[in-house]
Amino acid sequence: MTAPYPLKTLFKPKSVAILGASRTKGRPGNNVVKNLVEMNFNGEIYPINPHTDELYGLKVYPNIFSVDDIECGIIVLPTKIVVSAVKDCIKKGIKSVIIITEGFAETGTDKGVNYQRELKNLSKKINILGTGTLGVINLPDFSSTYVEIEGLKQNGNVAFISQSGIFTGGMVHYFRTHDFNMSKIISLGNKIGVDDADIIDYLYDDGYTNVICLYIEGITDGNRFIKSARKFIKNRGPIIVLKGGKSPEGKKAALSHTSSIAIDNEIFNSVIKQTGMIAVENLNDFISLSKAFSLYPNEIRGNRIAIITYSGALGVLTSDQCSKFGLKLASLSEKTAEKIKEVIYNRNPYNNPIDTYPATLKSGNERTFITCLKAVLEDPGVDSCILTAWGSDKPDKAENSYSNHLKDVIIEYHKKNKPTIVAVIGEKYGIERQRAFLEKNGVITTIFAD
Amino acid sequence: MTAPYPLKTLFKPKSVAILGASRTKGRPGNNVVKNLVEMNFNGEIYPINPHTDELYGLKVYPNIFSVDDIECGIIVLPTKIVVSAVKDCIKKGIKSVIIITEGFAETGTDKGVNYQRELKNLSKKINILGTGTLGVINLPDFSSTYVEIEGLKQNGNVAFISQSGIFTGGMVHYFRTHDFNMSKIISLGNKIGVDDADIIDYLYDDGYTNVICLYIEGITDGNRFIKSARKFIKNRGPIIVLKGGKSPEGKKAALSHTSSIAIDNEIFNSVIKQTGMIAVENLNDFISLSKAFSLYPNEIRGNRIAIITYSGALGVLTSDQCSKFGLKLASLSEKTAEKIKEVIYNRNPYNNPIDTYPATLKSGNERTFITCLKAVLEDPGVDSCILTAWGSDKPDKAENSYSNHLKDVIIEYHKKNKPTIVAVIGEKYGIERQRAFLEKNGVITTIFAD
Repeated sequence: MTAPYPLKTLFKPKSVAILGASRTKGRPGNNVVKNLVEMNFNGEIYPINPHTDELYGLKVYPNIFSVDDIECGIIVLPTKIVVSAVKDCIKKGIKSVIIITEGFAETGTDKGVNYQRELKNLSKKINILGTGTLGVINLPDFSSTYVEIEGLKQNGNVAFISQSGIFTGGMVHYFRTHDFNMSKIISLGNKIGVDDADIIDYLYDDGYTNVICLYIEGITDGNRFIKSARKFIKNRGPIIVLKGGKSPEGKKAALSHTSSIAIDNEIFNSVIKQTGMIAVENLNDFISLSKAFSLYPNEIRGNRIAIITYSGALGVLTSDQCSKFGLKLASLSEKTAEKIKEVIYNRNPYNNPIDTYPATLKSGNERTFITCLKAVLEDPGVDSCILTAWGSDKPDKAENSYSNHLKDVIIEYHKKNKPTIVAVIGEKYGIERQRAFLEKNGVITTIFAD
Repeated sequence: MTAPYPLKTLFKPKSVAILGASRTKGRPGNNVVKNLVEMNFNGEIYPINPHTDELYGLKVYPNIFSVDDIECGIIVLPTKIVVSAVKDCIKKGIKSVIIITEGFAETGTDKGVNYQRELKNLSKKINILGTGTLGVINLPDFSSTYVEIEGLKQNGNVAFISQSGIFTGGMVHYFRTHDFNMSKIISLGNKIGVDDADIIDYLYDDGYTNVICLYIEGITDGNRFIKSARKFIKNRGPIIVLKGGKSPEGKKAALSHTSSIAIDNEIFNSVIKQTGMIAVENLNDFISLSKAFSLYPNEIRGNRIAIITYSGALGVLTSDQCSKFGLKLASLSEKTAEKIKEVIYNRNPYNNPIDTYPATLKSGNERTFITCLKAVLEDPGVDSCILTAWGSDKPDKAENSYSNHLKDVIIEYHKKNKPTIVAVIGEKYGIERQRAFLEKNGVITTIFAD
C-alpha cells in the first residue's frame, strides 16, 4: 500500500485547499478554483495565496495554517517550493495531496530527481497523487482539475485511469463532448505515492465501476498490480489496457514524460496473461472499446457473431477482422434461415455474412434489415451481431423510421445479453448524425465494421 | 490481355446505350440514365427499352439495332437475358459492355455458374467489365453508375479500384461528401473480362494517376498482375492494397460475393513482396492513406520523423506507432535545438517528441508550435512531421489565427517535399471543424496521432 490514508479523502474530500490559487484567469491555479465553485462542491473550499483576498466569491487565505481542518490539498505551486508545501500539509494533518506541478524526475535534471526522491519519502505520511497529474474527476462529488468539465457526465460504469496529465485533459474534452458517461477519471502522473493498484482497489468497492480503461507506461509494483487487477477482473469486469513505450523510441519518450521506466514488452505480456486484461494497440481502439463498454455494460454470452451487411466486400472484410480477434461466424439455424428467406429471395439464406443487397430493392430497407436482425438475435447459436446501416445527409421519412425501429430492436436484445454493433456508412453528415442518434439511445456504433 | 479493345471505350466512350433503362425512379436502370444526363455526358446517350418512348428528355429505343454506332453498353437487365444481350452487343459492334446485373457464379447455383462461363467465352470478342459492377466513374467525361455522384470531384491523382459493386457505391458517397479528389473510380465485380492488370495499365498512361488504391479478393492472372503493378510503382507511384478474404471465414464470404477464389495469404504476401505494394490491414487505414496521398502527391525524402505534441502520452504512443511502421524519430540538429529553446524553456531542446506543454502557457500556442514546426521542417535531418493541434467547439481569435498560420507553413513545406500530418484532438465539433478546415486547404489530418 502506497497510500497511508483512505482514498476517500482524494475522491470525495470534505474540505479542500488550493495551494497556489491564482488570480490570473486561464492559469491552472485559477481554473481549479473556478471548477470547484461551478460544480457546486459540497464541502469547504480554501484558496491559499498570501497576495489575494478573494476569488470567485471565496475568501482567500494566506496559508494553510490560517484555516480549519483540511482533508485534501491541491498543489499548483512552482516546482521548487512543492516539497516544503507537502511538509506543511503533513504538519497540518492533511490526508491527501494532488500535485499538479510538473518539473520533477521527468526533466532528467539532478534537481528534479532529488525533489522527487524527497517526495517519495514523504509519501509514507500522506497520500500523494502526482506529480504532473490532473488529479481526480469524480462528479458530482469532486474535481481537482483545471481543464473544462462542463457537460461531463459521470454516472456510468467505466473508469478511466491514465498515467498522463495533459493526455487525460484531452480525453476529458473528448468524453464531455462525445457523450461518454464515465464513472471516475484519474490521472496518476509520476506515481510518487498513489499508483494504479491503489486506484483499482478503490474502484473495486465504489459500487459503480465494472470496466476500467487504463493507460500505463510503467508499473511501480508488479505483484501488487497483478493481484489488484486480477481481483477486479474476476469479480467486477474487464480492464482494457493501452501501454505506452513499447518501442525503444516510445520508451525513451516515456522516461522524459512521467519519469517512468517503461516495462519491457515481455514482462508486460506476462502481466497481461496473468491478469486477463484486454490489451489494445492504439488510442482509437482504446476509446472505441471504452465507449462500447459504457453503452453495453452487460455480459456477452460467447464469440459467435452474425454479420448483416449492404455490401459483400464489407462482409468479407468484417469476417476477416472477426477471425483476427478470435470471433467465429455463427452457423444460422433452420428457423433463422426460414425467416431470412422471407426478405432475401436471391441468396442462400444460411449465408453469414448476410448480404442484403439487392434484396432491399424489393423487400425494402427497414423490413429486410429488421427481419434479419430479429432472426439472428433470436437464434440461440448467435451471441452478437454486427450490422451495417446507412446515414444520409438529408434522411427521408423511411430512413428515420428505420433508424428508430433499429434502435428499439437493439436495445430490446441488450436486455437479453445480445449486443449489436452498428457500422454506419454513407454521406459525411449522415454518418455523424446517424451515429450520434444511435449512441444517444444506447447503441454501440462504429464507422467501418472492420 | 483480357480486353480485346482499347479501354478508352470504357472510360471515355463516344456513345453509350443503356440496356434495361427503366422508367421507375430509384431503380438502377433509371439512375444510370439520370446520372448521364445530369453530368452532361458529351456523347450520344441511347436508353434501350421496348416499352418506353422517352426518359429524362431523351428518346428511348426499342433495341440496340435501331440506333447508330454504339461504343459502350451498360447492361442493367435481368440475369437470365444478359448472355443473349451481350451476344447482340457483339453483333452490333459495341466495343465495351459494363454489366451491372448480379446473380452469376457468386450465387453458387448451376445456372449462375453456366451463365458466367458463357460470358467468359464472349469476353474474347468484347470488353466485359463486371458482372455485378458499378462500372467506371470518370468525371467529367463519363459515369456508368447508378449511385449519386453529385459533388464528386475527379481531377485528382488517386485512383480507386475495387472488386466490389456496392462497396464502391458506398465509397463514392464517402468520397463525394468528404472532399476526396480521386482521378478514376473503377468497380470490377466478378472480373469476367477486364481485370486489375488491364486497369492498372490504362491508368499508367492516363496522365493523372500516380497513386492507386486497390481492394481485391482474388487475382485472375498473377504474373500479368505482378508485371503491371511493378511497372506502375516503378514509374508512377504507390499502390495501396486492401485484401478481402484473409481468414477462412472471409474467404468463404468472398466466394459468395464476387465468385472469387480469394488468394492464399502466403501467395498474396509473395505478390506484395514482388511488386512493392503497400498492404493495409483495414478499411480505416485504406481510406486514411487514400486521403493522405490525394492531399500530398509529392515524394517523401525518407523515414525520419519529428513529433510535436501537447501531451507526453501522445508523444509516447505516436513514437510507438512510428516504430511499428519502420519510421525513425529524427535526431534534431544544434541549430534546430537553439530555435526550439526560444519557446520551450523547461525541457531538453533536443527531445523528440517535442512536448510543448506547459511551455505554451508562457510562450503562447501559436508562437510555440509554429516556431517548433518551422525549426524541424528546416532541419535537413527531418523528413516529415506529426503535429498535434487542438479544435475547440467555439474557437477564439487566437485559435483561428493559429490554424491559418499552421496551414500556411505546412503547405509551404509540402512544396519542399516535407509533409506534416496534423492530429486533431479537442472537443467534438471542434475536431470536425478543424479537420475540415485543414483538409480543405490541403493539409493531411487524422484524429489520433497513433
